[in-house]
Amino acid sequence: MATPEQIVDQAFMDQALRLAARGLGRTRPNPAVGCVIVRDGVVVGKGWHRKAGGPHAEVEALRMAKGAAHGATAYVTLEPCSHHGRTPPCCDGLIKAGIRRVVAAMEDPNPQVSGQGFHRMKQAGIEVVAGVREVEAQRLIRPFVTRMLHNRPMVTLKSASSLDGKTATREKHSQWITGTTARRRGHQLRNVHDVILTGIGTVLEDNPRMTCRLKGGRDPIRVVVDSTLKLASDAAVINPHSDAPLWIATTHRTAETQGTRFADIEGVEIIPCSDDDAGRVDLIDLMKKLAEKEITSVLAEAGGRLSGSLLDHKLVDRVALFMAPMLIGGREAFGILDGLGVGQIGEAPRLSQMDVQNLDGDLLIEGCLTYDPNP
Amino acid sequence: MATPEQIVDQAFMDQALRLAARGLGRTRPNPAVGCVIVRDGVVVGKGWHRKAGGPHAEVEALRMAKGAAHGATAYVTLEPCSHHGRTPPCCDGLIKAGIRRVVAAMEDPNPQVSGQGFHRMKQAGIEVVAGVREVEAQRLIRPFVTRMLHNRPMVTLKSASSLDGKTATREKHSQWITGTTARRRGHQLRNVHDVILTGIGTVLEDNPRMTCRLKGGRDPIRVVVDSTLKLASDAAVINPHSDAPLWIATTHRTAETQGTRFADIEGVEIIPCSDDDAGRVDLIDLMKKLAEKEITSVLAEAGGRLSGSLLDHKLVDRVALFMAPMLIGGREAFGILDGLGVGQIGEAPRLSQMDVQNLDGDLLIEGCLTYDPNP
Repeated sequence: MATPEQIVDQAFMDQALRLAARGLGRTRPNPAVGCVIVRDGVVVGKGWHRKAGGPHAEVEALRMAKGAAHGATAYVTLEPCSHHGRTPPCCDGLIKAGIRRVVAAMEDPNPQVSGQGFHRMKQAGIEVVAGVREVEAQRLIRPFVTRMLHNRPMVTLKSASSLDGKTATREKHSQWITGTTARRRGHQLRNVHDVILTGIGTVLEDNPRMTCRLKGGRDPIRVVVDSTLKLASDAAVINPHSDAPLWIATTHRTAETQGTRFADIEGVEIIPCSDDDAGRVDLIDLMKKLAEKEITSVLAEAGGRLSGSLLDHKLVDRVALFMAPMLIGGREAFGILDGLGVGQIGEAPRLSQMDVQNLDGDLLIEGCLTYDPNP
Repeated sequence: MATPEQIVDQAFMDQALRLAARGLGRTRPNPAVGCVIVRDGVVVGKGWHRKAGGPHAEVEALRMAKGAAHGATAYVTLEPCSHHGRTPPCCDGLIKAGIRRVVAAMEDPNPQVSGQGFHRMKQAGIEVVAGVREVEAQRLIRPFVTRMLHNRPMVTLKSASSLDGKTATREKHSQWITGTTARRRGHQLRNVHDVILTGIGTVLEDNPRMTCRLKGGRDPIRVVVDSTLKLASDAAVINPHSDAPLWIATTHRTAETQGTRFADIEGVEIIPCSDDDAGRVDLIDLMKKLAEKEITSVLAEAGGRLSGSLLDHKLVDRVALFMAPMLIGGREAFGILDGLGVGQIGEAPRLSQMDVQNLDGDLLIEGCLTYDPNP
């Protein structure tokens, strides 16, 4: 049972988490962080990290709280930093403002700095509580952690299928499998990811814009995997539906011979990558290239072939499987994952923290993937 | 808002429904029916229809209630019969016992008799309330209704797959996709169906027993679709794991030329059926043959080919899709439905009354199928 104080702490932390989430897809390569400052039960300051180079969440919240921060409690979704980055350390700001108590959702995940912020604040006489809503906070900063630890972005695989795992009928018909509520949720996913990734097959087939059609949303950077540069210059992804850049991932060889085709188009950039045994873009190298370009999160909305290849390379960290309450059937129909797949059941990646929601009749199954569950 | 009397009625009807469910898979070709007799808020009699030819639920309940039935309320899941079948009409029994009030979940679905039981009881001065928990009651008698109206059994398609709709890996490995709780639920389904149906492919591949391994459960009749009689005489379905009959559905031609192979094996029967264009058992004819043999419910636990063919023929009335929280992937992996499938999304059969349960981590998605949703 939680104590009354713990319940209050959780409620204000939830508010800080909601603020942090506003920064998702906007703070790369930094994590999304939120902060709420509370004095005598009243919120006197709040802030979130809006973009890299801009003020940290704590700075924003302190700026709003002004003198009311003295003796107050600060709720932060991540351990306040103790080092000089692009901005001065947040620890010092909290100490200087006279904060009495700091509640943090989690320690800094960087083992070289974690705990140092807490330590410095404790030395200054601040009461520090850590670990409130830690699971939720971990989830928010997972893109940042993935890039930091694995030198690649965190990849979420999105699909829209029938209950038998089909994304299109044998006649390649796929509009619309899921309903409007599910499709809106799909656009919310685009809004919070740095990159939306798809393959040239999907582009040629559906001619998508790959933009976020939500009021107040922002378009992710669009990345198309196109090993032999089949993209036509009149494709919808190139035309001015969006200010977001379009990156075309292709092989070094193709980039050298054909890359100039797109040289004069504003917002379009070629990313030359290594190729694999079949002469296609090496996805592991592509992810490394994206991390170098400070991408922390990728939403893969691709056909079965690219999606299956991502899974085969163990590059899928999280899934968002939208399933409509229908059966499409058919040996020749198109499935979610068309790669090699696993040989034995025990080798299949499993979902952890699975969450199932009903979106006006469609199901959304989300979860993190664990590979080699039976090593 | 329900009145206090309605809430009481629903609670006793729930009890009658639970009693009725005990007869599922045991009363063919009759429906499962339950009855509870309540006097002054106390259950004085209860019964359910145990098997065709045996006493009806009302008769069992009246027998237990004896004199206490006088002035009592009878809760029945189906309108009491007014005609002489294998047993005398239940209406007369209720009237004779002095029942004051009858609460029924639904009218008799046979348009030629529905309402007549209610009418006769009202004429005898009994207060009649109909429609309490009607949806649940409809579901219980759906096998009976399907056979009566469509001259075929009700078919429930069961599958166990990964979230991407794969029932086996590319190496045909499938044990075990779902966990023990889901598998136990699968055996509960076997327990309440008249027939478990599979194809010869699954029998050759997995050598299953097709029995119900639940304490107190009973084995359904086992039916194998085997167009060219490939079944070996040492298959597990033939050997004495079960007292339940084994029916082998094959084509007329194969039955004539090879049917004698199984003539001397006790409990094994050949069902000769018409063949389709490909020379395989015509599934529509098989269902008609099963209905003639008084089968009302079929649980199809089959490979993708037979399952897909059942769906293509619009013979699947209900689904029970067990999904494990894993991704198998693979173009060569095996899927739930391997038939022709639909051409356009709008033609895909849709689930109504969808229910999603979490069975210790596995999902169970159940629902009725509606074909031609956009005619």
